[in-house]
Amino acid sequence: MAIKIHGGKFLIAGGASLVGSHLVKGLLAKNASEVVVYDPVLFDANDSLGDLKKDPRVRLVSGDVMKLHQFIKHMDGIDGAINLAAYMSLGFSQNPWDAIDVNIKGHMNFLESARINKVGKVIFASSSAVYGFGIGGPITEDMPHKVSDNPPSAVAYGSSKIIGEQLCRMYKQNYNLDYLALRFSTVYGENQHHRAANALYIIDTYERLLRGEPAQLFGDGSESKDFVYVGDVARAILMGLESDATDDAMNISGGRSTPTKELVAMIAKIVGSDLEPEYIQEDGRVRLKSGAGLYYVNTKAFDVLGWKPEMSIEDGIRRLIKTLS
Amino acid sequence: MAIKIHGGKFLIAGGASLVGSHLVKGLLAKNASEVVVYDPVLFDANDSLGDLKKDPRVRLVSGDVMKLHQFIKHMDGIDGAINLAAYMSLGFSQNPWDAIDVNIKGHMNFLESARINKVGKVIFASSSAVYGFGIGGPITEDMPHKVSDNPPSAVAYGSSKIIGEQLCRMYKQNYNLDYLALRFSTVYGENQHHRAANALYIIDTYERLLRGEPAQLFGDGSESKDFVYVGDVARAILMGLESDATDDAMNISGGRSTPTKELVAMIAKIVGSDLEPEYIQEDGRVRLKSGAGLYYVNTKAFDVLGWKPEMSIEDGIRRLIKTLS
Repeated sequence: MAIKIHGGKFLIAGGASLVGSHLVKGLLAKNASEVVVYDPVLFDANDSLGDLKKDPRVRLVSGDVMKLHQFIKHMDGIDGAINLAAYMSLGFSQNPWDAIDVNIKGHMNFLESARINKVGKVIFASSSAVYGFGIGGPITEDMPHKVSDNPPSAVAYGSSKIIGEQLCRMYKQNYNLDYLALRFSTVYGENQHHRAANALYIIDTYERLLRGEPAQLFGDGSESKDFVYVGDVARAILMGLESDATDDAMNISGGRSTPTKELVAMIAKIVGSDLEPEYIQEDGRVRLKSGAGLYYVNTKAFDVLGWKPEMSIEDGIRRLIKTLS
Repeated sequence: MAIKIHGGKFLIAGGASLVGSHLVKGLLAKNASEVVVYDPVLFDANDSLGDLKKDPRVRLVSGDVMKLHQFIKHMDGIDGAINLAAYMSLGFSQNPWDAIDVNIKGHMNFLESARINKVGKVIFASSSAVYGFGIGGPITEDMPHKVSDNPPSAVAYGSSKIIGEQLCRMYKQNYNLDYLALRFSTVYGENQHHRAANALYIIDTYERLLRGEPAQLFGDGSESKDFVYVGDVARAILMGLESDATDDAMNISGGRSTPTKELVAMIAKIVGSDLEPEYIQEDGRVRLKSGAGLYYVNTKAFDVLGWKPEMSIEDGIRRLIKTLS
């Protein structure tokens, strides 16, 4: 079913996150009557939400996705709920127990609370990690999960998102709970946090150049990512809520392959640095490999939701960097 | 590290199962000094373990993989531990919450108990479900997980096994806990239980023929499974314990593709029925599709462990059927 945002009530699990802060803004701009930010607020809530917290329609709940009773209570009267609460590959590597709890059991609690409270529709933040890492070229929604030759934390993260999608399918089958699973590629933007291994590279590179050190390129710099601007991601969630589409999963991505060396050149241009990057080999950091020409085809999101990304990567990176200085 | 079975102590989580009963027998035959069968014994323990329970070396513990303290207590002094405790696709469909708890959190508790008690080696019962369903031809260990076009319970089951393997890898990396993950194909054998959607078909077909009803074939009967005899599976686990191999995953399979119509003909021959099978379309039961010519290549298990299956499917089915009459 389609959810009307004007006058509606929404709950965002993990709402004090990068995507969460932009989503809160988007819901308020479309005249939602209430936005519950359900988040342990252990991370960067103050930075990311900023002045949004002062809006009387925003209710900040120090909520734990592992507490079903608390979730059920705060889901009362909600029209649409969005689950952004998750650990990513880095978190899986540092703390696999909490990561599995939050990504799988937390999501089950989210769905159960939504079902009990007859929430009209839920949006699940899935990930392009469902395809695995070390792949290249254009990736469509029907592709399998590449497991071999990847670090255990990355595979576990991808699998946790696959299970998350299957739980949505089961709740639709068994209880007719409407949902959409949106598979985000590498999200970046203003107030970028420091928990995403891929987007973090932008910040690292920027800070190196600022210190007068050369940017670091791995291998020959042809490895590619598909970056998607956080504002475009928030807009996809809003369009997902407003759409009649249900029981489906789709890529929400830039739809464009950015080789690392191109990314570094972009950042150097913004900073005004003419330092040549240095080419280095592996250095032991958690780094998720990708093949050449990698991007996630996003035409399904256009066909189903009418969504496509609007921000160019140059402008998006400029915005991100502005919030760093 | 290699574990000496003679004089050794072993714990089998989910030990009152089809594979468990054959494994207990195998460990006792190789003069293990103690075998702890850790199992809620909610299922068919009495049937499957039978006289094995009378052996003074067998200790039956009504153990719950969700209780970490209980697991830790009973893992004390154990040389090798095997985790067979799991829900399969049918269980994921009927009870996703318990299934996810047991397959993922239960396995984490298993590994944590083994680590704390300095168990020498663990064996994880993985599954050919890590490749997904609806695939055909020869399947090797490096192949991806096919997610699309499969029922949510089957995808969630396969993903839970992938996560289980990744947790083993993390415990090896972080704590040097030796492990092998063995990916079983469709296990069948004496005292076949009624929880496995694939092997159940053998029993169904047998019972139909016995009642004078025709066997039922789906589609054109070319859909294939790779059956592996439970005694061969138990032997693979013993060889895995005794081997120096660690930090690896491999197929434990029949290594042969059996089309459904060939399987049905085999059962008809054993029963002495000349009834023609009936070809039917889908009937709404949980059924896991497979492509033509499906089998799981098992040469890696031979290279690493020296294992290969020994039971022919004809003889194996004869044995299964004998325990039904």
